[in-house]
Amino acid sequence: MTVVKSTLPEPARRVAGEALQSTLVDLLGLSLIGKQAHWNIVGPRFRSIHLQLDEVVSVARSFSDTVAERSAALGLPPDGRPETIAAAYTLPGPKEGWLRDTEVVQLVVDALASAIERLRERIDATAEPDPVTQDLLIGITSELEKQRWMFDAENWPRDE
Amino acid sequence: MTVVKSTLPEPARRVAGEALQSTLVDLLGLSLIGKQAHWNIVGPRFRSIHLQLDEVVSVARSFSDTVAERSAALGLPPDGRPETIAAAYTLPGPKEGWLRDTEVVQLVVDALASAIERLRERIDATAEPDPVTQDLLIGITSELEKQRWMFDAENWPRDE
Amino acid sequence: MTVVKSTLPEPARRVAGEALQSTLVDLLGLSLIGKQAHWNIVGPRFRSIHLQLDEVVSVARSFSDTVAERSAALGLPPDGRPETIAAAYTLPGPKEGWLRDTEVVQLVVDALASAIERLRERIDATAEPDPVTQDLLIGITSELEKQRWMFDAENWPRDE
Amino acid sequence: MTVVKSTLPEPARRVAGEALQSTLVDLLGLSLIGKQAHWNIVGPRFRSIHLQLDEVVSVARSFSDTVAERSAALGLPPDGRPETIAAAYTLPGPKEGWLRDTEVVQLVVDALASAIERLRERIDATAEPDPVTQDLLIGITSELEKQRWMFDAENWPRDE
Amino acid sequence: MTVVKSTLPEPARRVAGEALQSTLVDLLGLSLIGKQAHWNIVGPRFRSIHLQLDEVVSVARSFSDTVAERSAALGLPPDGRPETIAAAYTLPGPKEGWLRDTEVVQLVVDALASAIERLRERIDATAEPDPVTQDLLIGITSELEKQRWMFDAENWPRDE
Amino acid sequence: MTVVKSTLPEPARRVAGEALQSTLVDLLGLSLIGKQAHWNIVGPRFRSIHLQLDEVVSVARSFSDTVAERSAALGLPPDGRPETIAAAYTLPGPKEGWLRDTEVVQLVVDALASAIERLRERIDATAEPDPVTQDLLIGITSELEKQRWMFDAENWPRDE
Amino acid sequence: MTVVKSTLPEPARRVAGEALQSTLVDLLGLSLIGKQAHWNIVGPRFRSIHLQLDEVVSVARSFSDTVAERSAALGLPPDGRPETIAAAYTLPGPKEGWLRDTEVVQLVVDALASAIERLRERIDATAEPDPVTQDLLIGITSELEKQRWMFDAENWPRDE
Amino acid sequence: MTVVKSTLPEPARRVAGEALQSTLVDLLGLSLIGKQAHWNIVGPRFRSIHLQLDEVVSVARSFSDTVAERSAALGLPPDGRPETIAAAYTLPGPKEGWLRDTEVVQLVVDALASAIERLRERIDATAEPDPVTQDLLIGITSELEKQRWMFDAENWPRDE
Amino acid sequence: MTVVKSTLPEPARRVAGEALQSTLVDLLGLSLIGKQAHWNIVGPRFRSIHLQLDEVVSVARSFSDTVAERSAALGLPPDGRPETIAAAYTLPGPKEGWLRDTEVVQLVVDALASAIERLRERIDATAEPDPVTQDLLIGITSELEKQRWMFDAENWPRDE
Amino acid sequence: MTVVKSTLPEPARRVAGEALQSTLVDLLGLSLIGKQAHWNIVGPRFRSIHLQLDEVVSVARSFSDTVAERSAALGLPPDGRPETIAAAYTLPGPKEGWLRDTEVVQLVVDALASAIERLRERIDATAEPDPVTQDLLIGITSELEKQRWMFDAENWPRDE
Amino acid sequence: MTVVKSTLPEPARRVAGEALQSTLVDLLGLSLIGKQAHWNIVGPRFRSIHLQLDEVVSVARSFSDTVAERSAALGLPPDGRPETIAAAYTLPGPKEGWLRDTEVVQLVVDALASAIERLRERIDATAEPDPVTQDLLIGITSELEKQRWMFDAENWPRDE
Amino acid sequence: MTVVKSTLPEPARRVAGEALQSTLVDLLGLSLIGKQAHWNIVGPRFRSIHLQLDEVVSVARSFSDTVAERSAALGLPPDGRPETIAAAYTLPGPKEGWLRDTEVVQLVVDALASAIERLRERIDATAEPDPVTQDLLIGITSELEKQRWMFDAENWPRDE
Repeated sequence: MTVVKSTLPEPARRVAGEALQSTLVDLLGLSLIGKQAHWNIVGPRFRSIHLQLDEVVSVARSFSDTVAERSAALGLPPDGRPETIAAAYTLPGPKEGWLRDTEVVQLVVDALASAIERLRERIDATAEPDPVTQDLLIGITSELEKQRWMFDAENWPRDE
Repeated sequence: MTVVKSTLPEPARRVAGEALQSTLVDLLGLSLIGKQAHWNIVGPRFRSIHLQLDEVVSVARSFSDTVAERSAALGLPPDGRPETIAAAYTLPGPKEGWLRDTEVVQLVVDALASAIERLRERIDATAEPDPVTQDLLIGITSELEKQRWMFDAENWPRDE
Repeated sequence: MTVVKSTLPEPARRVAGEALQSTLVDLLGLSLIGKQAHWNIVGPRFRSIHLQLDEVVSVARSFSDTVAERSAALGLPPDGRPETIAAAYTLPGPKEGWLRDTEVVQLVVDALASAIERLRERIDATAEPDPVTQDLLIGITSELEKQRWMFDAENWPRDE
Repeated sequence: MTVVKSTLPEPARRVAGEALQSTLVDLLGLSLIGKQAHWNIVGPRFRSIHLQLDEVVSVARSFSDTVAERSAALGLPPDGRPETIAAAYTLPGPKEGWLRDTEVVQLVVDALASAIERLRERIDATAEPDPVTQDLLIGITSELEKQRWMFDAENWPRDE
Repeated sequence: MTVVKSTLPEPARRVAGEALQSTLVDLLGLSLIGKQAHWNIVGPRFRSIHLQLDEVVSVARSFSDTVAERSAALGLPPDGRPETIAAAYTLPGPKEGWLRDTEVVQLVVDALASAIERLRERIDATAEPDPVTQDLLIGITSELEKQRWMFDAENWPRDE
Repeated sequence: MTVVKSTLPEPARRVAGEALQSTLVDLLGLSLIGKQAHWNIVGPRFRSIHLQLDEVVSVARSFSDTVAERSAALGLPPDGRPETIAAAYTLPGPKEGWLRDTEVVQLVVDALASAIERLRERIDATAEPDPVTQDLLIGITSELEKQRWMFDAENWPRDE
Repeated sequence: MTVVKSTLPEPARRVAGEALQSTLVDLLGLSLIGKQAHWNIVGPRFRSIHLQLDEVVSVARSFSDTVAERSAALGLPPDGRPETIAAAYTLPGPKEGWLRDTEVVQLVVDALASAIERLRERIDATAEPDPVTQDLLIGITSELEKQRWMFDAENWPRDE
Repeated sequence: MTVVKSTLPEPARRVAGEALQSTLVDLLGLSLIGKQAHWNIVGPRFRSIHLQLDEVVSVARSFSDTVAERSAALGLPPDGRPETIAAAYTLPGPKEGWLRDTEVVQLVVDALASAIERLRERIDATAEPDPVTQDLLIGITSELEKQRWMFDAENWPRDE
Repeated sequence: MTVVKSTLPEPARRVAGEALQSTLVDLLGLSLIGKQAHWNIVGPRFRSIHLQLDEVVSVARSFSDTVAERSAALGLPPDGRPETIAAAYTLPGPKEGWLRDTEVVQLVVDALASAIERLRERIDATAEPDPVTQDLLIGITSELEKQRWMFDAENWPRDE
Repeated sequence: MTVVKSTLPEPARRVAGEALQSTLVDLLGLSLIGKQAHWNIVGPRFRSIHLQLDEVVSVARSFSDTVAERSAALGLPPDGRPETIAAAYTLPGPKEGWLRDTEVVQLVVDALASAIERLRERIDATAEPDPVTQDLLIGITSELEKQRWMFDAENWPRDE
Repeated sequence: MTVVKSTLPEPARRVAGEALQSTLVDLLGLSLIGKQAHWNIVGPRFRSIHLQLDEVVSVARSFSDTVAERSAALGLPPDGRPETIAAAYTLPGPKEGWLRDTEVVQLVVDALASAIERLRERIDATAEPDPVTQDLLIGITSELEKQRWMFDAENWPRDE
Repeated sequence: MTVVKSTLPEPARRVAGEALQSTLVDLLGLSLIGKQAHWNIVGPRFRSIHLQLDEVVSVARSFSDTVAERSAALGLPPDGRPETIAAAYTLPGPKEGWLRDTEVVQLVVDALASAIERLRERIDATAEPDPVTQDLLIGITSELEKQRWMFDAENWPRDE
């Protein structure tokens, strides 16, 4: 017996559900590593990057809520438990301990770039089965691309 | 060479640091399982518990930030990465998929009770080495005990 | 002589206009039956559903304004008069008098499900002629699907 | 068996209930025709009247909620369903399609004047049976008379 | 020698003063028993009723201030001391200890119904001597009748 | 030809209009003498009374607007021009120049007492012809009686 | 014996005091005739001018407070009593009764132009004796010139 | 069977519970006598003390809520019913009727001093059994000592 | 060497970049001519259109920021320098000096209609290469079409 | 025939008008190049300067509005069209494309220094003909000098 | 080598710099002695003066920031270190320990009068070299003269 | 004769008083040197540190108020006069004139470290005599340790 019914037919629901579940993991992961860097950063740009990271975390947390609730709305229970994130998260993450500010900037650029690449694939995959989910993924991509640029601009000249 | 210096002597710093790191893991874990339940709950009390869970998550997120920054302030880099939480989190957590409202209430009561028990041990341990850290742990305990009561009161009569 | 000119060619305008007019009737109808239930609900979940219904009404009112103004912006006068709504509204609605809370939950799930089904057809129909209107309908669908899930989650187990 | 009990004796309750139910229909009707004019108005005073109409709609919506909840508080289920409004609404309303600004001003003056006349009769009728309901109707009349004046002042010289 | 002078002649002042003093006791009593129930409620509707009780308390506190200041404005010192409330309060109140949610709902319905009945008598009594005081009592009655309905609607079916 | 039409029959309109016009003059006068005292007060209670006077001015300004707009709503143009206020204002007012704080308190008590006495006559006069206007005058009286008490309480013991 | 001492020598104080007292009368007069027009305006621009007049009134009230308190700060008790305004106000003012919107616009343009002309003379007169007072008058002139322009722009073509 | 479970062992819970229950009675009593004085004060410092008393009431109400919810959180139902307060309240309180401002100041100083003395004993008593409750009592003491100082400073020279 | 890297492949980036750069010029141009009209408008609808123009300017400024930052996010430096706008702006603009209100309304309708037409071409062009950019352009078009309608409705009958 | 009349005699008006028109061009130019730098800046101080530039833009936009409306208030239509800015703007501006953070800081220091120098000349020129305009220019200069310092302090040591 | 460049020529800069530095010391001194009195005041006007002193402190702190940043903007490093204030502050200040309310009022009147006298000299001195600095000093004088009046009015009759 | 009475016995009061007075001097000194650095800092991190210093100043000002009022609450008049701070302040402070950003960061780290060390001694000293004062000092230490960490993290690698 179905617990929460879906407004989508089955194959469409499966495609949308997979896109949402993997996006959820990416966003929860980004929110955790963003905080990790926020706490452990050192160097002359400490304050500036410390504050900027909180914006990334805030964006990631807010979108993770939207994504998980969209999954539930389609009748698919989302999974954001610690063990699931640890097992499924594949974006770059920080090493243990203090992190130099330049390292942090590079790390965030790389993590966001990977997340964006994966989102663009899901945008293509969901266009047909569920344009409502696609529209949500487009909005997330737009914001993450903006965040990526701001860290990339901060990251120049790169050989510094 | 020390990156961030400490205002505490070494043995005190180690005790306080361990208390803060394990509290950080508990709080980040609570914030993740709180959201998991917030998304997956079903049953006639859906809305009421759904909203109450967001207060627990908000409390857990806010205290996790305070705890991690206190650790950094003592010269100890906090660790809140996904793999660390998954490995170190020992409080009860939800199973996969939809969760009945009564199950959720019981789960939160149990998870908070475990967290509180562990916090009370750390309050004792830090009294001597660092009353500043102890005061922070007392504040967290007070709030979690309030949250636990509100779920426990909701949970009665228990055999329902 | 045309009163308000359109930025769309004629056939596109007609398709978009029909989609918007029927969406307007659905949303105004939902706002009225949502309030009817808000006032007449009785039962142990009175307060919880009473508040949740006001969120549905608020969503429906706000989107009805956007939809009607979009229609006007395309040069098509929208029609939201009482007699038009009464004649054209086809979604489920409440009976007269007090309504048991469980009945209300089921009613809102059904009314929203019907509205969503009709919106998804209009999303397909407007993709080609006017992607701006389509984007608006996608946004409405996303929000109504979220509302539907929250009532459906509340509605479980269904045979209660 | 009575669902919601009343704090009024029966004859008083019936008089107050009828006054409230007919006021509810008038107010919901005004809110719908106010929005209809808000969307369809054209002419050099478009913006000014467009904004003023939203104030009328906001007043009518807010009072309709108060009136319906007062009816429920007296143990009488209010009826604001689309079919009820369409059947029972007797104030002047707009024709279909675009509306010239001068027409709109005249229409609102007329509709408010009719509503006020009917309210004054209900103020007399409820004085004895329920001064609490009377006080509410006095407050509504005061606000609608203010709105009527502002449209009437805008409407001069009338033969323009 | 009179301390604060009155703007009312003596017999009118006495009638208004008695109505205000007994209303003050009822409202302060309601604010105290509302909080008592807010703290001691248990059961599956804990959160929902816990929040709703705070609205009753807030209403009762705010009106008690208005009533006491109106009494002072008429030159009659109001009396809201603990011993006065305990001696003069005659509305139903809770027993000691934890309270089941269903009991709380019934208790509040009963206490509000008694308060309303007493207020309606004072509305009649003050109509002639002081319509300003009467108007204040009408406003309080209106709000308490709304609160009573919301608990009564929550209280159905009553034999549950 | 009538400019703004009335919703009241002629004799009722004349009674309400006279009550409103004389109330308007009293309130505008109070707002001007309140400010005069606010600027010219001296003595050890300067700050306390200086602030309290601004509350009286704020109340008088706000009610004067309501009263004048009610008059216009009844089709009677209100008159608040400087020469009209100077000619028609009959309440006590301050002498030129600096004012001792004790004088100010006594002056405000006297001016408010006169205004209240005149308002109570108008409450009686308008009860029959226009209960809507009466309700407005009751509200003004209630607030002015509260202000009068607060200055009278400040004014004790009077022979100090 | 001086009540409030001055920080200016005597001749300077007299010049500044006269400039402030006559500015006070102009501003209080403007605030009263602005409200008179706000209440009595009729015509198709009713709403637009009705709102704009409230901005003039708000500006005039706020500056009258600043001007009167500056006078007091220089040890000169300001005079803003009704009889003083009526006797000393020399700017144009409205006739009794309803006012056509075009008349109102012309009246405000004329009244502001006269006020500005008088202010510019006082700016010259106070430059030497008290640049602090001059600076305040410059600020008032700037704002009144802006208000005058907005009514003058509204007033075109003038022979309409 | 225990209704709400405790996170404290039994003897600790009893000590903390007694400290919280007697603090609750003191705070609810202070909130009632604070309001009583707020309404009945007369004298030249009326406004100043009238406002300051509302701060005491606000502090006492807010802490009473915290204290009662802490008691519930420890599994002990708090008791704040009118009869309990009247029976258990032992701090000084006002006599009936109007109160001279100097009397009020002395009364509040005395009542707060007694409350503080009793709180300091409970701070000692709870240090061992429950540092979380102790921390809450310390915070209440700090705020009440600040309030006491402000009334005591107002109360000087005492023989005035 | 690339300064800011792109998340799009080259040909897609070029198409999106051109769409964004020309939209940027249109929006900055609209913000400048909107302000020009805001300052230079004269006529009986001065205030109404003066305010409405500020909404257009606010919309144009806000979207120009979003568009330019999206361009940067794609690795393409946006160009909004004065000389670039002057050279590339091709929408209708106002002549020098005062502008009659009717002229302004027509000018804004025309400028917005041109901007919308160009945006619709870019919506088509970007659908394939970058749906994220397309979604942004759809949002801008939606808002500009709403603004255009409101000026067009104001512009009727056109031969006035 | 004059459209908007002036409150200044002709020669004074011409001097003030020229000062305001050239200030308008400088400020609009600064707002455009400030945004250009805000979007195109790269380097390790990206975030810090990116945010600081938005403050400059906000200041420049707000003052440009004040300056243009002051010009209109003096009866002189301001000119802020794209072609006018491009032709008349003479302060330093950025080259096309990405801009290194150090370059941006130097550019803003230079542009503000030029703007300030030109403003100081206009302060001298307007002192006699129109002290109201002079006062406005003094206010602008004060704010731009503060902004210049903050960029200059950031720009040190200069040979870095 | 100059660190921060100036926009003023040397002699002007020196005059403005001296005026700003001595004003900075006066304002920082006033903020410290204002707080000292705020904490140590006793007497029946405790609360009233306690609050008024915080307004003086707030004004002094805010202006000290403006003055110091203006000095920096002119290329002159301001000096507000404790030893500088202690050495250079010459206005009256309080003795150690508790301060009677009447003493405090007199002290603030005297300290502000001295500060104003010194500011008026600096207004004259800076008129020629830097009208921007002069304008700032005029604004400070205006506010301090208002504060002085309010304490002086409180201070009457002086022999009380 | 005692002016403000104490709620502590004499020896406890002396210990607490000394701890509070020396903390007051440290905090007022920190607020002054924080502002000094805020104004005089130069270098590429100007904006970032300039803003961060204002947070330190805000913290120091707010705690200095709390500390001084706690001292008064214990019956001990606090001393924060300029000469007292200059004489008693022993933490590191800045030299005269412009300060390089790296110097500022080091200075703040050192000053905060000294303040913290002294606070920790006072936490020990006050534990027994007054746990309420101790709790306040713990709160201050917690915040200053957080601020110290943020500057220390900014200060790395230290030999840069």
